[in-house]
Amino acid sequence: EGDKIDSALSPLKSFKGFSFEKVLCENAKSKSLFIMGQFEGSDDKAVVLLEKMPFSSERATNYVCQDTNLKETLKNDIYGTYDAYIPVQENAVKATVIYPATEKHITKYTDQERFVVTETADLYKSITLPYLEEKEFSVQWVYNILDKKQESERIVFEDPDPETGFILLPDMKWDRKNINTLYLQAIVHKHGIKSLRDLNGTHLPLLRNILKNGSVAIKEKFDVPRSKLNIFIHYQPSYNHLHVHFMHIKNETYGFAHLLSDVIENIELKEDYYQWKTLTYVIREMDELYKRFKDAGHL
Amino acid sequence: EGDKIDSALSPLKSFKGFSFEKVLCENAKSKSLFIMGQFEGSDDKAVVLLEKMPFSSERATNYVCQDTNLKETLKNDIYGTYDAYIPVQENAVKATVIYPATEKHITKYTDQERFVVTETADLYKSITLPYLEEKEFSVQWVYNILDKKQESERIVFEDPDPETGFILLPDMKWDRKNINTLYLQAIVHKHGIKSLRDLNGTHLPLLRNILKNGSVAIKEKFDVPRSKLNIFIHYQPSYNHLHVHFMHIKNETYGFAHLLSDVIENIELKEDYYQWKTLTYVIREMDELYKRFKDAGHL
Repeated sequence: EGDKIDSALSPLKSFKGFSFEKVLCENAKSKSLFIMGQFEGSDDKAVVLLEKMPFSSERATNYVCQDTNLKETLKNDIYGTYDAYIPVQENAVKATVIYPATEKHITKYTDQERFVVTETADLYKSITLPYLEEKEFSVQWVYNILDKKQESERIVFEDPDPETGFILLPDMKWDRKNINTLYLQAIVHKHGIKSLRDLNGTHLPLLRNILKNGSVAIKEKFDVPRSKLNIFIHYQPSYNHLHVHFMHIKNETYGFAHLLSDVIENIELKEDYYQWKTLTYVIREMDELYKRFKDAGHL
Repeated sequence: EGDKIDSALSPLKSFKGFSFEKVLCENAKSKSLFIMGQFEGSDDKAVVLLEKMPFSSERATNYVCQDTNLKETLKNDIYGTYDAYIPVQENAVKATVIYPATEKHITKYTDQERFVVTETADLYKSITLPYLEEKEFSVQWVYNILDKKQESERIVFEDPDPETGFILLPDMKWDRKNINTLYLQAIVHKHGIKSLRDLNGTHLPLLRNILKNGSVAIKEKFDVPRSKLNIFIHYQPSYNHLHVHFMHIKNETYGFAHLLSDVIENIELKEDYYQWKTLTYVIREMDELYKRFKDAGHL
């Protein structure tokens, strides 16, 4: 097992030795493609996520230059369309390699049917919570970040307070160059807050601290003011340790994002707002939670 | 002039001779970049629209091959991210050249800055409401629909009750063929509800009726169940007469949509929730409301 992990960690130079098995998911809107395959000499599966990257304004002159070859595809009056072959170093694709990939990764990145779930407080208690408790999803990688065992060089800001503190670092989806796609996550130091559902009046100092000092840090480091940021919490989250997303408004938020300022105001109104509130979100066919809601007759 | 047009039409082989002037617009989500400049020997402006293209499933093996060079950007446990330089012929960018481009083209492709507005109850009363009252935006075209003077043949469902009734009809953006892009609007018969801000306890029967019977009508007419629908209200709305959006979940909702079921539950909790709540939304630089918030020192 140790060997395998080690080889997984050695940086790849190319996809030499990768054998393509199938496309898991194709998204024309986000211009992404998720692929499953194997690396030579291993029985483990690998998942490769390819995603076209946004252009960078600062590099515009490198796109419209004499090294960009054009192949006309259509012309009509003043309009001409071309396939443009811009210099390869200016046109990187973002590749994420997950290796070895588990069944869960494969399911996660496979395209599937989606359903709206209307999770009342009762349904949370009878279906969602037991599911989370039973599965005990590991957040060890989050603890590695919080304990500076991983990614410590990426930390943009830290408030070390164990109750109200957090670490702010770039989201994996951000290239850390293009300000318009700025995307960071604040991960709270406090353990045990699984999601929005767990938040109550005792967490107000934590939430207010993230909203205020996360914004201040982003203004200082990246010169992006709060009026250019969407600051939100996802429900369901992608991992069960409280984290807040800071995203430039030029990025689009997903549906079912809960603005942090709304979360704070709602808890100010009613301390147990998120224990009481019906929460609506989309789940996919292959999510275990879909099966649970369906089996209980709620889908 | 004829010469110039002719030369504009001759297919370009590269951007040789193009001098970059400025970026008009940059969109990280659609991964596009709009550029203005000039071609050598001409005073006319040219607009170049660059857009990354989606991957093609059929060509997947050409992306994850030994000719794709990888440069590691991050690794953590089983996850590695890379800049992938896939073969240039597999990574064309779509370029549209408009030449000569008029002022109108340039305005059309120029980005407007956007700002997040945090509209407290007080700011609504002191800025937004006076603005709406002063402008008296006409909703005569909505009354024409409600009175069957317009678009009556498009009505999918009607409940004629003057207090709790509504008309359900396809949104103009829906082609009425593709079920995955299904998009309808419920427009209330009752006049004078300008937006979410005006909703209170007296409107609960109206809102519950729309949620229930709008969904039933869509299930009956289009066989799309409620678990496949996002049902929401925009704030700010695009016109100031209460309407509810019914959209297939395969469509993407904009940010700042308020789910109708959340609106109902919040008013059940606190009758004047939407008169009390701070509402957050994005406005554009050229919006009159932007000017008002800015002049009042809130942006």
